Amino acid sequence: MVWTVKTWAEWLNGTVEGDDSRCLTGAATLTEATSEHIGFLANPIYTAEAEKSNAGAIVIQKDVLLRVSPQTALIRVENSYQAWALILKKLSDTPFASGISPHAWVDASAEIDASATVMEGVWIGARVRIGADCIVYPGARLYPHTELRERVIVHANAVVGSDGFGYTPPQGTQVGFEKIPHIGGVLLENDVEIGANTCIDRGVVGLTRIGEGTKVDNLCQIGHNVHIGKHCVLAAQVGIAGSTVIGDYCQFGGQVGIIGHITIGNRCSVGAQSGVPKSLPDGSTVFGSPAMPLSQFKRAWVKWKQSGLS
Amino acid sequence: MVWTVKTWAEWLNGTVEGDDSRCLTGAATLTEATSEHIGFLANPIYTAEAEKSNAGAIVIQKDVLLRVSPQTALIRVENSYQAWALILKKLSDTPFASGISPHAWVDASAEIDASATVMEGVWIGARVRIGADCIVYPGARLYPHTELRERVIVHANAVVGSDGFGYTPPQGTQVGFEKIPHIGGVLLENDVEIGANTCIDRGVVGLTRIGEGTKVDNLCQIGHNVHIGKHCVLAAQVGIAGSTVIGDYCQFGGQVGIIGHITIGNRCSVGAQSGVPKSLPDGSTVFGSPAMPLSQFKRAWVKWKQSGLS
Amino acid sequence: MVWTVKTWAEWLNGTVEGDDSRCLTGAATLTEATSEHIGFLANPIYTAEAEKSNAGAIVIQKDVLLRVSPQTALIRVENSYQAWALILKKLSDTPFASGISPHAWVDASAEIDASATVMEGVWIGARVRIGADCIVYPGARLYPHTELRERVIVHANAVVGSDGFGYTPPQGTQVGFEKIPHIGGVLLENDVEIGANTCIDRGVVGLTRIGEGTKVDNLCQIGHNVHIGKHCVLAAQVGIAGSTVIGDYCQFGGQVGIIGHITIGNRCSVGAQSGVPKSLPDGSTVFGSPAMPLSQFKRAWVKWKQSGLS
Repeated sequence: MVWTVKTWAEWLNGTVEGDDSRCLTGAATLTEATSEHIGFLANPIYTAEAEKSNAGAIVIQKDVLLRVSPQTALIRVENSYQAWALILKKLSDTPFASGISPHAWVDASAEIDASATVMEGVWIGARVRIGADCIVYPGARLYPHTELRERVIVHANAVVGSDGFGYTPPQGTQVGFEKIPHIGGVLLENDVEIGANTCIDRGVVGLTRIGEGTKVDNLCQIGHNVHIGKHCVLAAQVGIAGSTVIGDYCQFGGQVGIIGHITIGNRCSVGAQSGVPKSLPDGSTVFGSPAMPLSQFKRAWVKWKQSGLS
Repeated sequence: MVWTVKTWAEWLNGTVEGDDSRCLTGAATLTEATSEHIGFLANPIYTAEAEKSNAGAIVIQKDVLLRVSPQTALIRVENSYQAWALILKKLSDTPFASGISPHAWVDASAEIDASATVMEGVWIGARVRIGADCIVYPGARLYPHTELRERVIVHANAVVGSDGFGYTPPQGTQVGFEKIPHIGGVLLENDVEIGANTCIDRGVVGLTRIGEGTKVDNLCQIGHNVHIGKHCVLAAQVGIAGSTVIGDYCQFGGQVGIIGHITIGNRCSVGAQSGVPKSLPDGSTVFGSPAMPLSQFKRAWVKWKQSGLS
Repeated sequence: MVWTVKTWAEWLNGTVEGDDSRCLTGAATLTEATSEHIGFLANPIYTAEAEKSNAGAIVIQKDVLLRVSPQTALIRVENSYQAWALILKKLSDTPFASGISPHAWVDASAEIDASATVMEGVWIGARVRIGADCIVYPGARLYPHTELRERVIVHANAVVGSDGFGYTPPQGTQVGFEKIPHIGGVLLENDVEIGANTCIDRGVVGLTRIGEGTKVDNLCQIGHNVHIGKHCVLAAQVGIAGSTVIGDYCQFGGQVGIIGHITIGNRCSVGAQSGVPKSLPDGSTVFGSPAMPLSQFKRAWVKWKQSGLS
């Protein structure tokens, strides 16, 4: 698809500064872009790269100052992030046809909507349900009693519905741990996205549940009977232990750990690598392992760091 | 399977308080249970939920006080955790037939017991041995020279026997790292369970070995030539670096890291997210990164946290 | 392959102390070795094990003192690590034939060199390129626009090229996050090795790139548009967030986390479990979460630990 700067600007509802007749053949990063590429600037830390860029056009917020080379046109928009998402959607080749790959292994009792995509090497166990417009990437495993509502994306090699980590400790003459069978399921609500190689355990009884619109990055661990609310964001390698309940609009940085059997309120924010050992009220912002309020952590940290200088 | 409260109680060797004639159709969490469900209470933090529960019956320890709604019968037992495990075993539908799926890829030199289950998309390399009653879930990969004794469970997409992370550093005129070939194997003893997406590297020479009854949760990393003793419990996302030796009955919390080439004694306990940089004697309880005795950590931590308030 | 101690010594360009006529049938660890095995000593922490070893021969650095049992010959070499790598290479059975397994799923538009090995259950998407002598282990997933140069190894169940974790936050009347399509790719340069179950996200636009000779262990997460230089070493469970740029010859310990959008210089060293929140100049050695210079961390840590004793 080749579009002129002018056509892109009209389509994005933006205004052009500079030459609007140039033909653009694709999108690129500011550093890699040539005069045939469209780029974008949202984060001010990349201002210097934008000013040195050879891009044919740069999409930018309405009111941001930027001094670019004469060959680079600016397309000014209300919201440069959203404009960028629109551009990428336009340029993205829909990668896969819908339907169930003949190279997927699907239990006869599974119910899969005709608009869903199930790719090669996927395994789908008994009584799994997959709703409209879901995409299940190669090698994902959906154990029995997993339900995906609508527009759910499960990336490659993710495992949904494996047994939780539950054992009865040694008792009396018993020497080792005894496995607690898991007979519950997993429910992923509308618009959930699950990253590659992420694991979500099934409930012991009842459900492990991830709310509408929540995004889980790669290599995360969600324990049995965890309930996560709507529109949360979990960065890569987060681990949440069993039976913890999390509210809506929470954000967890990479490698965060959350202990089991606690409650995290709505709109909580947990910094990367933090460990949360107890329940948090709505709107908490915490950091550290074990975690404390971010402002408290910062003050303690500055003194601590200082103590290492002498 | 529909059983009355009375039948469940007799089977669990318990005594009933309340109506023992109600028919129960399944198990559920205290919050989700209706009058047709059996639930259980072991952890006192769920007492309030038990008292509000609509369950038809709740299994509970012999001597615990609990005020439930009139419709809810109590089944009092010696050990509510073990009773719960028995109930779930009873209700669990054995999920899979034994045998080797025609959609698994099995090297001709592998030896697999007739009672073992090898599911779709599993890959089994040369000279692998799988003992009686093992279950290997879809997408698990067993590299050459892996041995599973009896009743071993390997969950979906786990990788057992991949090359360890061993390289000779650049020397003389050599520019980069050179790979050290790995020719050893992995031995998983009786009743070991390996979580989904967990990785266990093969020995450089000799074995990486996990002792009888040890349970490893999802997304863990066990380095080459690690030896883990019997009846240990490793929570999710734990990492153990190469050649470390671990005793029996150890417990590691989630996201723990253990450095390579050290020795951890028997019955050691390492708190979540801790990092262990040196050997530990039998019975150690440590916390922190780097880890120290738990009591010491707690005292240091309280002062540290306090220092962030002013 | 059975060789005498003498033959091994000649082949390794070493000198023998003790009986050079013994026949050796394989390699083993010092503890497990019998008189038919060759072992090696490089790390002095294993000196006691070497002195108690029953090995037929031990490969050792030219000038190291060691008192072994009379039945054990010493083969003294310039570099015992490199000699060990040579021995293992010699003993390693090349495990797999080259070529594309008929049980791999390969898009018609992918280009795969005839000398490459693509094993069972591998999925290769559109426009993927795989160069000479690459090995892709079972269950690895290469999303569209992934390129492997030469001699790249991708271990089992690794996922290369999945979508990065990019969303536009809720705006105006929009309730949830909107997915930013990813149309970029991944480039793995010559001699890169990717561990089992590791995830490498594709660029939003442009490339996620890993430089020549860099080794990435199991269960690591490399975010979208990350650039890693040459000959770096990333231990298991490391996470690097999007758009971060890393120099050459860096070493990251296990479970390290690196924030997004920063720059790490050449020859930087980051200790296990550390978290790097800001850019680092060439040659930095840091530790802690958040990380600081190692020497500063050590001083602060000693005082901290001391404060827990009273």
